[in-house]
Amino acid sequence: MSAEIKSLFEELATLKADLYGKDFLLTWEKSDAQIRAVLAIAELLKAIHAENIPLDMFKTGLAVSNFRDNSTRTRFSFASACNLLGLAVQDLDEGKSQIAHGETVRETANMISFLTEAVGIRDDMFIGKGHTYMKEVAEALDDGHQQGVLNQRPAVVNLQCDLDHPTQSMSDLLFIKNHFGGFDQLKGKKIAMTWAYSPSYGKPLSVPQGVICLMTRFGMNVELAYPEGYDLLPDTIAVAKKHAQKSGGSFKVSNSMESAFQDADIVYPKSWAPFKVMERRTALLEKNDHAGLKELEKECLAQNSKFKGWECNDKMMKLTKGGEAVYMHCLPADITDVSCKAGEVSAKVFEAARIGTYKEAGYKPFVIAAMIAACTKKNPAQVIEALYKSGLKRVL
Amino acid sequence: MSAEIKSLFEELATLKADLYGKDFLLTWEKSDAQIRAVLAIAELLKAIHAENIPLDMFKTGLAVSNFRDNSTRTRFSFASACNLLGLAVQDLDEGKSQIAHGETVRETANMISFLTEAVGIRDDMFIGKGHTYMKEVAEALDDGHQQGVLNQRPAVVNLQCDLDHPTQSMSDLLFIKNHFGGFDQLKGKKIAMTWAYSPSYGKPLSVPQGVICLMTRFGMNVELAYPEGYDLLPDTIAVAKKHAQKSGGSFKVSNSMESAFQDADIVYPKSWAPFKVMERRTALLEKNDHAGLKELEKECLAQNSKFKGWECNDKMMKLTKGGEAVYMHCLPADITDVSCKAGEVSAKVFEAARIGTYKEAGYKPFVIAAMIAACTKKNPAQVIEALYKSGLKRVL
Amino acid sequence: MSAEIKSLFEELATLKADLYGKDFLLTWEKSDAQIRAVLAIAELLKAIHAENIPLDMFKTGLAVSNFRDNSTRTRFSFASACNLLGLAVQDLDEGKSQIAHGETVRETANMISFLTEAVGIRDDMFIGKGHTYMKEVAEALDDGHQQGVLNQRPAVVNLQCDLDHPTQSMSDLLFIKNHFGGFDQLKGKKIAMTWAYSPSYGKPLSVPQGVICLMTRFGMNVELAYPEGYDLLPDTIAVAKKHAQKSGGSFKVSNSMESAFQDADIVYPKSWAPFKVMERRTALLEKNDHAGLKELEKECLAQNSKFKGWECNDKMMKLTKGGEAVYMHCLPADITDVSCKAGEVSAKVFEAARIGTYKEAGYKPFVIAAMIAACTKKNPAQVIEALYKSGLKRVL
Repeated sequence: MSAEIKSLFEELATLKADLYGKDFLLTWEKSDAQIRAVLAIAELLKAIHAENIPLDMFKTGLAVSNFRDNSTRTRFSFASACNLLGLAVQDLDEGKSQIAHGETVRETANMISFLTEAVGIRDDMFIGKGHTYMKEVAEALDDGHQQGVLNQRPAVVNLQCDLDHPTQSMSDLLFIKNHFGGFDQLKGKKIAMTWAYSPSYGKPLSVPQGVICLMTRFGMNVELAYPEGYDLLPDTIAVAKKHAQKSGGSFKVSNSMESAFQDADIVYPKSWAPFKVMERRTALLEKNDHAGLKELEKECLAQNSKFKGWECNDKMMKLTKGGEAVYMHCLPADITDVSCKAGEVSAKVFEAARIGTYKEAGYKPFVIAAMIAACTKKNPAQVIEALYKSGLKRVL
Repeated sequence: MSAEIKSLFEELATLKADLYGKDFLLTWEKSDAQIRAVLAIAELLKAIHAENIPLDMFKTGLAVSNFRDNSTRTRFSFASACNLLGLAVQDLDEGKSQIAHGETVRETANMISFLTEAVGIRDDMFIGKGHTYMKEVAEALDDGHQQGVLNQRPAVVNLQCDLDHPTQSMSDLLFIKNHFGGFDQLKGKKIAMTWAYSPSYGKPLSVPQGVICLMTRFGMNVELAYPEGYDLLPDTIAVAKKHAQKSGGSFKVSNSMESAFQDADIVYPKSWAPFKVMERRTALLEKNDHAGLKELEKECLAQNSKFKGWECNDKMMKLTKGGEAVYMHCLPADITDVSCKAGEVSAKVFEAARIGTYKEAGYKPFVIAAMIAACTKKNPAQVIEALYKSGLKRVL
Repeated sequence: MSAEIKSLFEELATLKADLYGKDFLLTWEKSDAQIRAVLAIAELLKAIHAENIPLDMFKTGLAVSNFRDNSTRTRFSFASACNLLGLAVQDLDEGKSQIAHGETVRETANMISFLTEAVGIRDDMFIGKGHTYMKEVAEALDDGHQQGVLNQRPAVVNLQCDLDHPTQSMSDLLFIKNHFGGFDQLKGKKIAMTWAYSPSYGKPLSVPQGVICLMTRFGMNVELAYPEGYDLLPDTIAVAKKHAQKSGGSFKVSNSMESAFQDADIVYPKSWAPFKVMERRTALLEKNDHAGLKELEKECLAQNSKFKGWECNDKMMKLTKGGEAVYMHCLPADITDVSCKAGEVSAKVFEAARIGTYKEAGYKPFVIAAMIAACTKKNPAQVIEALYKSGLKRVL
């Protein structure tokens, strides 16, 4: 057993975190120990996968994916995670425009779950809807399990909602934790979570919200910066403040990219839409008001274009700690002169950080697998250890 | 071994039913022993799954699904069933409007089957077509297997055709058998299979046809009731009559929901289109006559609306045995004031029966798995027993 | 161990071909030993599958399919192959019209590959694009693997590009090799790879190109015949010439179906579009020029219709060796009076050869599986032998 694997098993034993029978919807609903446990399981799975040992803790079983918004990366991460654990993925394709309500949600949740162990949902387009929908599914599954409809209670995993994107923020966290050499090393580090210009509009808020709410728990100094008007949901701001206070870190909001980048150890420049715009968009989408949506897009793009200066380029990077801050992105980035004329990041800055961003993304399948394992096993560490010691090979 | 599992193995040994190398297309093509064997296998699989024992009797192998009509529930039931047995599902997506003929069917059936163990087909939209298509596929597979094209003969499973919906009716049967405490307890029980009002048209006939043809075999008193003109296919009426005579039950057709509900032990109120309408619809669909289809829909909805009184509500339920008949539905039901203004069933009646209908649906994955196991194994009981006694766990 | 299986293992031991860590994109990039090794592995897998022994050399792992053109047969062959080896297929659905470039290809290739073992790509619509795209993916995967983004380097398998269709041509080769009783028996045999009339246009060139480049390596006398103007890509003609010279076979191009069929042992009559037409089509498709595409189709169909005489019928077959040449086709064929009014082959000739063409297609899943096994295992024979001797059953 490698030193890394041994220390991860030891950490898990210490944490005594219990997620069995639960869902993973918002990081801020979970205790520090639960977050740390999922992260440790994710790293264990990644290390054991690298040693070519199978981790199929399910011999059969379905994992249902429900993507209410387009996705390639998260779809593959979820498929990879489920396959790693031995689950077969079945997509629930509702049709893009449908927002299911009431009876349908309750019934469908049960109908797709007779032999299902995990349900992954992405629902990030509608402010006030995504998280609500996930809770509705979870309650329907509780009901079905308690009443004897389902032999098992599938775990619901949030693959991005209107509030949080936990599989992304926890992958981000693992990336910087390993970059700096441990969670302790993150204390006092400054991370700039900033808005950046993009020639598109309507990008979800869940990434910046997820990042500020999670990083503040680890004693980091988080500065959130955006042009006036590009506010996040107030509730998530409150969570970030509370976390910073408790962890001994800090949380600051500014309207200056320069301020945020100044002496930052880590920068995370990314476009998003103001939550008030997203609320208007939700209302228009519900009414199928195509003309209204066109009008809103036009208005927002005009507004965005006032802030083309919010680009992560050499000049900005020079402001950071030693000019060498770690650049992060959830991908795909809008790269100036590569994927668009003017975007979130210059080609030079992105190219230097590119492999890093790929590695950042590479944690996601293991984070998802860890969430499923933690929520469906009474003692996930014991299950993983048994597999690790099986002497089997994943690839012959 | 639990008493239930033991008695199911004993029942299977007694039945000596052989379905090896065959398909499961229509219940009325099967002997009583064959029906009972599939039901017993389904219950065995369900009980063993609940004990967390793997049932992957295929280590590798494909299961092909061909949904010529939209489906969520049956798609998930088929996916669940195949996954339970160890098969991976591959969808054959033909495009909705295509009705393949001749060479294409023969060739495609072989091209998708080189490593395939089961083929599940839903083709319920076209009167006179669905069952015919399934037979064509089955014959092509016979030919391919006999001529050495295919190493194995995949089993074809009817996931709903124009004549029958065997995976539904057999799930329905298991639900009431367990509700009343055994097949013997079904003798003499009255079941009302009735039409009910719905604000849509063109619902398939296969559910009521499947139900009357199957329940009449078990000594039940079946009353089929519908408004004048909403006839089922005459051939299926003849089958139901014959079965009732043989089993000592009865089969009656009336035009009164009240008559059918009177003293009924079980009610199954569900909308369908008259088969003559479905025949006209088939002709219009084949001609791609959109205007004709619109016209037909208008005409039928107007006709339907004359029978809004055919709703399963408190008043109707009071007519049943002790006012407490078991309510059944294949789901989704059109629920008044929930999914529509006026529908098949009142919200109150449905809510009281809701969990029951979920359990009814919960048999379907196991019925499908049982059909596949019975049609692909010389001795399915022996295979299941070996898996049961393996000492393995399905979920670690 | 059967004599066939024993001799295949012996052949593999003799060949000492190494494909580990490589891709399978073009047959003419591979040595004779490598081609022979993949063919031997394909036959081994087919024979062992027929003996009901599992070949799941991957316990978990994804296989990504990327079909940039419609496909049923190849999709099922790929799904079958991956399932046979234990991999789960995840489709990458890019949307049909998208031709990804630059950053996107590099990034996407990595994002879908964190737990991926094989990537199958069909990209045959655009002259000058398909093979280029596959190389770009392969380079991105090399980069990702070398830089520590990916734990493993997935093998890229060409499921049809603008240049070659190796899974088809190698299945074709196995079919005739077994028909004639060995590779030695192919020496001196005449194969007519000819154009044939079809009431459609724009069929890819990769089949005839793949066939002439592969069959010329085995000492066969290959005659390529097409109406004036229906040229293949000049580079592939050069490859076929070189191969014929080296193998002691011959390669001739003519404009007469009769000349090609004269004394042929094997005939492969199949429609294709001239590569100059495909080039014009590529340009129009890139510009989304629908009017231009309509115009081109009209022009081409008019041109095609001058060559309705290029039909494989009784009269043509009489010209072949003893009137009994083996008829080959990659399927589906355009069959006169069956799938169209006038097509590539008469109903009578096709019907006589039909089961043969199904068997020809039946090699494809095993050829694909062999490519994946050869490219991902240091010693595929050893892995297969261990599975063969495991004593396990694939289907219980």
